[in-house]
Amino acid sequence: MIKVVLDAMGSDNSPQVEVEGAVLAAAEYDCQIILVGNKDAIIQELKKYPKARMDKIVIEHASEVVEMHEPAALAVRKKKDSSISVAMDLLADNKADVLISAGNTGAVVVAATLKLRMLPGIERPGIAIIIPTLTGVSMLIDIGANIAPQPVHLLHYGVMGDAYSRHLLNKSNPTIGLLNIGEEESKGTEFVKETHKLLNQSNLNFIGNVEGRDVFSGKCDVVVADGFVGNVVLKVAESISEAIGKLLKEHFKKDIFTKLAALMIINRKSFRKTLKELDYSEYGGAPLLGVNGRVIISHGRSSAKAIKNAVRAAREFVIKDINKHILKELEGVNLLKNTGQT
Amino acid sequence: MIKVVLDAMGSDNSPQVEVEGAVLAAAEYDCQIILVGNKDAIIQELKKYPKARMDKIVIEHASEVVEMHEPAALAVRKKKDSSISVAMDLLADNKADVLISAGNTGAVVVAATLKLRMLPGIERPGIAIIIPTLTGVSMLIDIGANIAPQPVHLLHYGVMGDAYSRHLLNKSNPTIGLLNIGEEESKGTEFVKETHKLLNQSNLNFIGNVEGRDVFSGKCDVVVADGFVGNVVLKVAESISEAIGKLLKEHFKKDIFTKLAALMIINRKSFRKTLKELDYSEYGGAPLLGVNGRVIISHGRSSAKAIKNAVRAAREFVIKDINKHILKELEGVNLLKNTGQT
Repeated sequence: MIKVVLDAMGSDNSPQVEVEGAVLAAAEYDCQIILVGNKDAIIQELKKYPKARMDKIVIEHASEVVEMHEPAALAVRKKKDSSISVAMDLLADNKADVLISAGNTGAVVVAATLKLRMLPGIERPGIAIIIPTLTGVSMLIDIGANIAPQPVHLLHYGVMGDAYSRHLLNKSNPTIGLLNIGEEESKGTEFVKETHKLLNQSNLNFIGNVEGRDVFSGKCDVVVADGFVGNVVLKVAESISEAIGKLLKEHFKKDIFTKLAALMIINRKSFRKTLKELDYSEYGGAPLLGVNGRVIISHGRSSAKAIKNAVRAAREFVIKDINKHILKELEGVNLLKNTGQT
Repeated sequence: MIKVVLDAMGSDNSPQVEVEGAVLAAAEYDCQIILVGNKDAIIQELKKYPKARMDKIVIEHASEVVEMHEPAALAVRKKKDSSISVAMDLLADNKADVLISAGNTGAVVVAATLKLRMLPGIERPGIAIIIPTLTGVSMLIDIGANIAPQPVHLLHYGVMGDAYSRHLLNKSNPTIGLLNIGEEESKGTEFVKETHKLLNQSNLNFIGNVEGRDVFSGKCDVVVADGFVGNVVLKVAESISEAIGKLLKEHFKKDIFTKLAALMIINRKSFRKTLKELDYSEYGGAPLLGVNGRVIISHGRSSAKAIKNAVRAAREFVIKDINKHILKELEGVNLLKNTGQT
């Protein structure tokens, strides 16, 4: 049975949502969930669910919590008994197959890099997120693990995104695009131009530069970006979706006519499907790719449903053995590089 | 009478939209419009509007056009008789008060920098755009004039955004935020940290770092950003608004019930107001700040209405004399800087 270690103290509403998410996931999926965090608080929450599958839920005590705004490296070094550190140790010691945390992203990245180390040949980890587009789903990598990257890091993100798209999103020949401010090769900073060259020389299905407007249009399957830019893009996208939703809702409330009309629309199945496609919590979490282990990072504002979906994503991460595929693809890229140099 | 020089060959649908926009603006605003571009093509278009106020419209021939995808610096150097160059020369020679172009943004920036020079004390121009937020309008500066900026350039963008907000958007004490990946001072790249320090020492109403999610929430009046990041943010925002609109519209079409319901909503005034608030063409164009002259950059996909609104924005730019206010504010910042150094 797949063992999922879940940081129970990570999200903004921890440990409530983590415990509820674990209970939902245990009921639905074939896995064991190890909840890591304050034992008393977790037990207190679990009492709300008398029908919880306790045969599939385990508690592992951790006395400390890394807060959202703590400097990541310092927090990991100082708080040896934090839920993130304890959970990462379990993963590093092979006592779990995959880890989920909705906590301080920087701390998760630092702990994973320190305790799991990198996959051989990869220099820096990247966080990949599945994004809904007009034509299906795409991936955006990196959304903030590495905010001052080198071009070769982005080449590796291309490789990792390709492997993830092929084996988890079942895309047969994923297209890779580089986020830039124009489509032409001559556009952008020196960093982006150098990255363009590396991706172009690789054996990836690289379609060249893509612009901000292409990210959510589905122009390519994997958008490769500097972690700073990727992070801003993701947060802008989330906030606009929320804002438009709010504007529509407020408008709908304005009078009885629009209220009735709105109900007619909102209750229809196809509209709810549209909303679902735009709902990030459906995708549960973002894989931290490049580390020698399996880590899923969830949103700090995750709901119990998002945590449950993160468990589903975590199970798939294990079953599809993405890291093996990344290593294999990397061989191809390095081979090409060596050939190019001789 | 204010003289507006309008590049008639800039937009994706030039010269049609420029000519129609000029006709609409001439009918509505007190100004003279100088249309620059292929004389025959412009006259051909003008024939569609027999009631056009030809007493307020002038044509200035330019034989060349800078295409959207031409490298900016090269195009400006080579095509001396392009509509952008000829229009910029008219502005530089004081034969016009303000310039509008929906053409190649890079070429407009290069031509403006070369022919108008910078305002004394400003090193690099920045494009500022007015963005609709949940609480009113804010500004984002820079959206792509300067993609490899130094921290001091962003300090100056803060000053320019402050002046524009005060005198054109009538905000009494505009708040300035720095776009970053977290709110804490310790977050971000070395470049962003250094910029944070400069803004913090200035006499601007600096509220610190803001995140991607804050840009369209109205958390601050002026969002200062690296031109690369600002450009991506803007294009992401545009595409998401469009995509959500498309999804809603497609859904609305699905069957007779939702179609009727949708009509009930869409035709109501308050809903149309909401849509209007989200419509970039309402704002017409983005000022290029920092050059010693008045330039408005419009979207390549501008409609005639957007061009008309750009003329309105251009007139205000002249009437409110923004550059004078920028220079005055800059004195304050430099004074402070000198004091700080002694």
